[in-house]
Amino acid sequence: MFKRLSVIGCGLIGGSFALALRASGQVEEVVAFDRDRASADRAKALGIADDVAATIENAVRDADLVLVATPVAQASHVFASVASHLSHDAIVTDVGSTKRDVIAAARNAFGPAIDRFVPGHPIAGREVHGPDAALADLFQGKRVLLTPLIENDEATIARVSAAWTACGGQVQTLSADEHDRVCSAVSHLPHLLAYALVAQIADAYDAELKFALAGAGFRDFTRIAASSPEMWRDIALANRDALLEDLDAYRAQLDALRASIAARDDDALFDLFTRASAARTAWRGDH
Amino acid sequence: MFKRLSVIGCGLIGGSFALALRASGQVEEVVAFDRDRASADRAKALGIADDVAATIENAVRDADLVLVATPVAQASHVFASVASHLSHDAIVTDVGSTKRDVIAAARNAFGPAIDRFVPGHPIAGREVHGPDAALADLFQGKRVLLTPLIENDEATIARVSAAWTACGGQVQTLSADEHDRVCSAVSHLPHLLAYALVAQIADAYDAELKFALAGAGFRDFTRIAASSPEMWRDIALANRDALLEDLDAYRAQLDALRASIAARDDDALFDLFTRASAARTAWRGDH
Repeated sequence: MFKRLSVIGCGLIGGSFALALRASGQVEEVVAFDRDRASADRAKALGIADDVAATIENAVRDADLVLVATPVAQASHVFASVASHLSHDAIVTDVGSTKRDVIAAARNAFGPAIDRFVPGHPIAGREVHGPDAALADLFQGKRVLLTPLIENDEATIARVSAAWTACGGQVQTLSADEHDRVCSAVSHLPHLLAYALVAQIADAYDAELKFALAGAGFRDFTRIAASSPEMWRDIALANRDALLEDLDAYRAQLDALRASIAARDDDALFDLFTRASAARTAWRGDH
Repeated sequence: MFKRLSVIGCGLIGGSFALALRASGQVEEVVAFDRDRASADRAKALGIADDVAATIENAVRDADLVLVATPVAQASHVFASVASHLSHDAIVTDVGSTKRDVIAAARNAFGPAIDRFVPGHPIAGREVHGPDAALADLFQGKRVLLTPLIENDEATIARVSAAWTACGGQVQTLSADEHDRVCSAVSHLPHLLAYALVAQIADAYDAELKFALAGAGFRDFTRIAASSPEMWRDIALANRDALLEDLDAYRAQLDALRASIAARDDDALFDLFTRASAARTAWRGDH
């Protein structure tokens, strides 16, 4: 149970967390802050928050739980702004899609008080954003990854974990390194690949015909290319090292594929497609 | 109205066409043939066909419509087998995902009788295959592309077009060159990209963790990687020239993207993601 939740960033994820925690009865009061005042006002109008704070400092005052739900490039600025205004017992958590950079920013801002920061990342999203996209059941049955720090005590981790469980999430912990490596491969790289394909088609002289004839395969493959450009620019840079490694490995895969097609090597193509098809069919899509 | 439809290849598409045409009342009798006798027998058991032909020659005898619904690499063999057994008034059409190679095979087999062949390609599919995957409403509201030949007379094209309309499809005609170029970009390339990503993750030492943490973005991006390996091997080779061109353009996109990330060029990333996101959002997914 929390007395006062402070949501910094009133978009899809911050808004959905506040709605879900309120719906579970695990929070008494929600205060919202957003760099865009209109988003915070909208969050209040939508019942996401009880109050809007005029400044980020005011937003965190007296909060016992602070959720940082901004694009990851802003985490450093947000942590620095709130560090000296937090209550004695405040726990800070985040929802960033990358963890090593966010943790480094938090260590920098919180110093010896880093034990109050529990890094988190819910594996849930939609291609629409802003407070109007928020849903109380967005995290229902979805995985929530926590990458606790060596400094966190068990009780602090348990408080954050309980909040996510109350929101319907299935909490799993792993290291920040593992998190960033895994998310690069199964999330960040696919986003880049989808953006690149849509850009390629949009730039073609016959783009209109191509879009007109694209079917369900294209629709699903490119769904993530409608995601927020700011959010994904930040993620691509925040998880730069893992992503460059995955991009290089992928580029090597494409080179091999190209060579197989050029050489009309049907066995090599059949083998690659068979392995991929078997792995994808064995994967159980919805957790 | 057709008296006798001969379906060569009793998979998802051939089976769905037969079910749809029967349901529309536009065909009296359906005869099935498959290189795998069990598939043809299963099609009969499922009500897709009235009869199973023991040989491909028998399958087309007395048919006034022959639908070739095999993987594209078999088209040449199928056309050669049936050419001299067709009725005087038989129309032949196909459902192949590539058109230039299928047309070349048809010209070779039918010679001066090429006017009876109307090339087609329904933009519809599922990731499950075989006669059990067939659905009477698979083509409902879906585009069906015809790439008529200079030799086809209007009445022949109209008969094929009417059959697809009866099945619920929205018929559109274009040239075989346009067809293959467009399908390479919006369908064949995405399939290769999805296969390559799943293979890369499946080959990783931490594949289990990666698959376990993959979410909805991964699910949709890789849905097409569960498609039939044989079908997509054939398509990759049949549409080799267009696909190599698209693959090269795509690799150039990825190289530029990699350079932007390596140089931490946030403007270039934001610009690319913004263009792609706007184009994908403007696209109306379901025709």
